[in-house]
Amino acid sequence: MGRVSRRARITRFRIDGTASKRDDVLAGEEPLEIRFQGRSFTVTMRTPGDDFDLVAGFLVSEGVIWEAGQLISMRYCAGVDEEGQQTFNVVDVQLRPGTALPDTGMERHVYTSSSCGICGTASIEAVRKSSHFDVADDGVRVPLDVLASLPDRLRGSQALFDKTGGVHAAGLFTAEGELLCLREDVGRHNAVDKVVGWALRNGLLPLRGTVLQVSGRASFELVQKAQLAGIPVLAAVSAPSSLSVELARDAGMTLVGFSRGNSLNCYCFPERIEARAEVAAGTGAGS
Amino acid sequence: MGRVSRRARITRFRIDGTASKRDDVLAGEEPLEIRFQGRSFTVTMRTPGDDFDLVAGFLVSEGVIWEAGQLISMRYCAGVDEEGQQTFNVVDVQLRPGTALPDTGMERHVYTSSSCGICGTASIEAVRKSSHFDVADDGVRVPLDVLASLPDRLRGSQALFDKTGGVHAAGLFTAEGELLCLREDVGRHNAVDKVVGWALRNGLLPLRGTVLQVSGRASFELVQKAQLAGIPVLAAVSAPSSLSVELARDAGMTLVGFSRGNSLNCYCFPERIEARAEVAAGTGAGS
Repeated sequence: MGRVSRRARITRFRIDGTASKRDDVLAGEEPLEIRFQGRSFTVTMRTPGDDFDLVAGFLVSEGVIWEAGQLISMRYCAGVDEEGQQTFNVVDVQLRPGTALPDTGMERHVYTSSSCGICGTASIEAVRKSSHFDVADDGVRVPLDVLASLPDRLRGSQALFDKTGGVHAAGLFTAEGELLCLREDVGRHNAVDKVVGWALRNGLLPLRGTVLQVSGRASFELVQKAQLAGIPVLAAVSAPSSLSVELARDAGMTLVGFSRGNSLNCYCFPERIEARAEVAAGTGAGS
Repeated sequence: MGRVSRRARITRFRIDGTASKRDDVLAGEEPLEIRFQGRSFTVTMRTPGDDFDLVAGFLVSEGVIWEAGQLISMRYCAGVDEEGQQTFNVVDVQLRPGTALPDTGMERHVYTSSSCGICGTASIEAVRKSSHFDVADDGVRVPLDVLASLPDRLRGSQALFDKTGGVHAAGLFTAEGELLCLREDVGRHNAVDKVVGWALRNGLLPLRGTVLQVSGRASFELVQKAQLAGIPVLAAVSAPSSLSVELARDAGMTLVGFSRGNSLNCYCFPERIEARAEVAAGTGAGS
């Protein structure tokens, strides 16, 4: 089976000019092919492990499914490599009859119309997927100290990062700070898909009242994945982009960035964050 | 025209419970549609700016072109948004007659065969693109102190990062440490594509004797992009994955990770790095 990490012999150089050979541990990265009823749909690079969660979450993020019952079965294809080993790198999915199957070229084409593409539309319209869930009416309140503690708690639970220093993580927490699910992957989108897929398979969608903490930036795609899973609060250790903020505002999602323990920035809907003091109208610039 | 950065009003919370409103600057992120002779090919999210470099580099990374003469023209599509503003989010490309046009579904299908996909092949074979250039025979030597200084030099030249704290960078350097080209983007793959596209458009491919320094992880895709541009040395601030190392070894590329000023890890072909001392056979574990 595909391995989560691998050992490698490396050369460590120090600035004083010395060099030494040593053993190191690398985060595993292998392709995963997703098929629908035997038909190839896509290939994604991922860290092996929790593959069924990844596939389920990917389908939620694509807007294909939103409840466990739509997913009839997932199984590893019986392929073997030239040494006769099962590769565990192909998953075949069977969806409930009537579930709209995506086109093979869907990801590429979902963004564009057949005529003028995104030429004449606002950028946000061109790339947005419609969500089955509404997060705008989620009245959850998250205490500031809980929210600020999540990056450290995420980091403290990252087994693979400890070994490799080279993977992203996504952690799903309750508003009281209880960790529900943590997943790691070389791709931060995959880490989120694995969490969302875990939730779907456990019948937990929409994820009302939860907080998703991610280790890196809050890209547009991560905001969209959170929205499609019904998550009302997304917090990132690093920065969001302009489009992330635009989408979060539109979705009614609380978006937090630069969550660094002592402070955090909220880009929209700060009323879900419970701080002791009232919001003062400062004018300081920068982050 | 699409903007490189945008201002936003945010709420800054501090762990003492205080909160204040302030202005912040976000890295721009907008979709860019790439067309071939009017036919839509793909949409990528990117930070606006250097779009022609991005498109040219993307085509190099896809293995479609490798010299400037294959690229006849690039122009912005004349579309406007509902306010009558040119969006500058669609680029139409004309390639030299005879250049193999990628299928519309190429990126999805390049990884899979029509029969059993990657089931029965080694993972590396399934995702590798063939390169027009060979980096294995590049005899460049890079002094260790030059190589170790590149992350700081990259960071020192990042105008957008200074404003937003939220973008990746790729910098192309000579073996003597001269900066040839630096590009920033919310997507680290885009930053590399912009550098490679700049080089192609200036007739500089293959980029023999150069070093590509990137701000994040060394993913499999970045190793592949460097290989397709003929870059013999790729250095990252963070970790590579197992597949990155596998591909770099196979390509004959020097791969460096955890380049942190005082030390760096070399995963293969350390002989291109000139240190003062000989390599000692240590057995220390970890990174």
